[in-house]
Amino acid sequence: MSQETTVNATVNATVDAPVKVAVLGAHGRMGAEAVRAVDGARDLQLVSTIGHGDSLRQLLVSGAEVAIDLTVPASTEENVRFCVENGIHCVVGTTGWDEQRLSRLSELLREHPEVGVLIAPNFSIGAVLAMRFSALAARFFESTEIVELHHPDKVDAPSGTAARTAAMVGEARRAAGLQDSPDATQTDPDGARGAKVDGVSVHSVRLRGLVAHQETLLGNVGEMLTIRHDSFDRVSFMSGVLLGVRTVSSRPGLTHGLEHFMDLDA
Amino acid sequence: MSQETTVNATVNATVDAPVKVAVLGAHGRMGAEAVRAVDGARDLQLVSTIGHGDSLRQLLVSGAEVAIDLTVPASTEENVRFCVENGIHCVVGTTGWDEQRLSRLSELLREHPEVGVLIAPNFSIGAVLAMRFSALAARFFESTEIVELHHPDKVDAPSGTAARTAAMVGEARRAAGLQDSPDATQTDPDGARGAKVDGVSVHSVRLRGLVAHQETLLGNVGEMLTIRHDSFDRVSFMSGVLLGVRTVSSRPGLTHGLEHFMDLDA
Amino acid sequence: MSQETTVNATVNATVDAPVKVAVLGAHGRMGAEAVRAVDGARDLQLVSTIGHGDSLRQLLVSGAEVAIDLTVPASTEENVRFCVENGIHCVVGTTGWDEQRLSRLSELLREHPEVGVLIAPNFSIGAVLAMRFSALAARFFESTEIVELHHPDKVDAPSGTAARTAAMVGEARRAAGLQDSPDATQTDPDGARGAKVDGVSVHSVRLRGLVAHQETLLGNVGEMLTIRHDSFDRVSFMSGVLLGVRTVSSRPGLTHGLEHFMDLDA
Amino acid sequence: MSQETTVNATVNATVDAPVKVAVLGAHGRMGAEAVRAVDGARDLQLVSTIGHGDSLRQLLVSGAEVAIDLTVPASTEENVRFCVENGIHCVVGTTGWDEQRLSRLSELLREHPEVGVLIAPNFSIGAVLAMRFSALAARFFESTEIVELHHPDKVDAPSGTAARTAAMVGEARRAAGLQDSPDATQTDPDGARGAKVDGVSVHSVRLRGLVAHQETLLGNVGEMLTIRHDSFDRVSFMSGVLLGVRTVSSRPGLTHGLEHFMDLDA
Repeated sequence: MSQETTVNATVNATVDAPVKVAVLGAHGRMGAEAVRAVDGARDLQLVSTIGHGDSLRQLLVSGAEVAIDLTVPASTEENVRFCVENGIHCVVGTTGWDEQRLSRLSELLREHPEVGVLIAPNFSIGAVLAMRFSALAARFFESTEIVELHHPDKVDAPSGTAARTAAMVGEARRAAGLQDSPDATQTDPDGARGAKVDGVSVHSVRLRGLVAHQETLLGNVGEMLTIRHDSFDRVSFMSGVLLGVRTVSSRPGLTHGLEHFMDLDA
Repeated sequence: MSQETTVNATVNATVDAPVKVAVLGAHGRMGAEAVRAVDGARDLQLVSTIGHGDSLRQLLVSGAEVAIDLTVPASTEENVRFCVENGIHCVVGTTGWDEQRLSRLSELLREHPEVGVLIAPNFSIGAVLAMRFSALAARFFESTEIVELHHPDKVDAPSGTAARTAAMVGEARRAAGLQDSPDATQTDPDGARGAKVDGVSVHSVRLRGLVAHQETLLGNVGEMLTIRHDSFDRVSFMSGVLLGVRTVSSRPGLTHGLEHFMDLDA
Repeated sequence: MSQETTVNATVNATVDAPVKVAVLGAHGRMGAEAVRAVDGARDLQLVSTIGHGDSLRQLLVSGAEVAIDLTVPASTEENVRFCVENGIHCVVGTTGWDEQRLSRLSELLREHPEVGVLIAPNFSIGAVLAMRFSALAARFFESTEIVELHHPDKVDAPSGTAARTAAMVGEARRAAGLQDSPDATQTDPDGARGAKVDGVSVHSVRLRGLVAHQETLLGNVGEMLTIRHDSFDRVSFMSGVLLGVRTVSSRPGLTHGLEHFMDLDA
Repeated sequence: MSQETTVNATVNATVDAPVKVAVLGAHGRMGAEAVRAVDGARDLQLVSTIGHGDSLRQLLVSGAEVAIDLTVPASTEENVRFCVENGIHCVVGTTGWDEQRLSRLSELLREHPEVGVLIAPNFSIGAVLAMRFSALAARFFESTEIVELHHPDKVDAPSGTAARTAAMVGEARRAAGLQDSPDATQTDPDGARGAKVDGVSVHSVRLRGLVAHQETLLGNVGEMLTIRHDSFDRVSFMSGVLLGVRTVSSRPGLTHGLEHFMDLDA
């Protein structure tokens, strides 16, 4: 597989000057992927790579317009504050942004109304779409179940994405006045019917060879709709990161969740 | 499979009086399914079944509020005109509604602004959603291909639904400035790469045992999103017909396409 | 779907006289399908249909060479005895054949060494192959799990076929010295990991629209093998019944299980 | 994904001394994977890694019992000859073994009857099983088609594995007296029905994000059997290489094709 391929599925043809991009946390696994992805995109220019211990001053010297933060929870807030105060837009994949941090950041952004910050818990475009479509479709089907499949070294079941999808599906069903999916099961001595999460059955498969996969199955009399997402490699997150980089300057303020950059309602 | 099950996936709990429904073309295959579906739905009341040769006057006597037209191209326009002129909403699954007919109907509806008519080429909720989601997702992926699978007695390839999906995907890709999906194929002596429809590769499988199935495959580096619809039985159309019956009275005027009753933008 | 199509996937071209076939239990659901299937096969001739209360004497008058028993547990043993004593081969889909009955039948067949009887708990060729292939493949993979999907009116989970498949897979793994599939799960509060049957994880999905479906997933580092069987309609059993009818006269004695007529070792 | 995991799906528990293994071509991509795989297997001991320019004499010093040849067509024959002459069993994944070379090797092996050599064009256990099962199942189904899916940098369609599978399926169908799969297609202006290879329809999907995947679809009235193989990573070949290493010393002479080490007839 040519994973070196430019991740430019959503590039609009453009003759503008490339956007100047910095990567923070450039020596981590995700950071290294981001460096490669920015490097490979014609409409972006990598101007700075910052690792642990490097000074953020480099950002100013480099002329970066957008910073990608893929560091650690302990430093991400300070990094983003520095960027916002210096007029640099941010795309943040680091975890650890709790309510308090988000509210402090919102406040800061009010003083810098031209700066945009995207914080996303999941940069996989496919996973975001799969969740969204599952929720949109849920109210039209009598039955919905979720099957997620991961490598066998995963310690929790179900996956966080499956639990969130179930919550979204459950909420959509309740909002439409639907009851739980029909189920005549009377005998299930070993728990083959799986977990109920927000009223939705969720099944977790663990199999050597797999990475991260999920199916939402929706059934009516005589038909089934399946929405499946396969994540074969963590490099898949880069499509979403680049979408964020390309969009963030036109979306001032704080945005939480990649889906808000995807204009799915249009 | 309990196909006698009430097709009520989208019923909102209601204490209102049931809606009075007539079925035109009640003795055809689809009409007979509609009779059974209306009969099995608690919030609907079957008040009239009209076959070939029966007088439309029965509709007035029966007090029908909504008529389902599943007749033939030769009579559907006259049936719908009669209904509109008598204040009966219509849900129309019969084919043959060309531009001329639609424009005559629009004109008539202007004189009866309280009446709603839904004309839909495809009443499968799953198929409508699969097409919609494919088009929504297309601009986010570097590659998109379509595989449709049908019973081997089908005479045309690709299927009409696959061709429409390809057209929708192709249009979404072009609007986003995407080029054709990457393809390094140099040697393909027997045409294994399938058809190109609006720039999108489409593959048609014909297999005994199948009914009507379709997959849209969307790929980025490291990930794939699959949207699959399985139609196991033509009774699946009834979910969409009932959705139309329940919605049409609140949507005056002419609506073309079930998707407009599904509020997918919300 | 053209379900009227001749079920003749395994017919060898032949110019021999058609085999004369009788159907016992011809008015039941499965019996009626068998009547249609025999009627539609060029190399078979339907010579007798026997319902509840009809005399078995008809079989002799009709010249039947093979009888298909799709009756009820209470009468199947008597029917088969009558056939064997009169030199008529039998293909039996009726349940209720416990060890005692089977051993009485074996004894009887010793007195009629030219007669063949096939008793099969499952006449679905696809299901038999899926189980067989799952068992054959199991020892080559680090991980194996089973997902079965059925209509929501099913009362037991997992399905009998899934439990049998798990038992076969488990036995093959143990025979090869394999331990249980790897599984690092530490947190699974709601039982998303499903049932363990003979050391193999089994997941049961219940979804409106489905009939009977099963997947065996086998994983090694970097690869997955999936063996999936979809049963869309009970008419699928007829392929196996006809295979039995065409083969039984060349296999004298008692055969238990359709797989023994399928020469899978060749 | 923990790809560092020991590839030991088929290890029988053993208290014997580990087998001493050498890797030839140890610095190539496949060779490096082999080094890691042997290193991670408890029942194997890596005693020598030989790269371009290294002397084969090292093999003798190291006491290697089995050599894995993952070099280049120009040197593989010489390497194998050296091993055979010195009583070292060989597992060969290098291409370029034409009829002439194979026959010269067979001759040499006659002089060294205790030595085993396995030459395999495909070391993917899953791919070998998928082909085998497709061929075994083919004669029981009215319809068979093949869909293969690969990354978009592949230059040929269909894939070699798909063509071989089609040939095996076609041969099995003809041997059973089956005609071509039914197909009523009359209109297919753009070639959506794909390629016909040995009478079997083959479809080639090219999609960014994929690696190498293949489905054989087999259909009868009312049912479908699907045999799917997903190769997510070339490391998957290592399961087959290790199977070869563990088996080759007990199979003297020349074996062509991994399937012969898999005892699929048992």
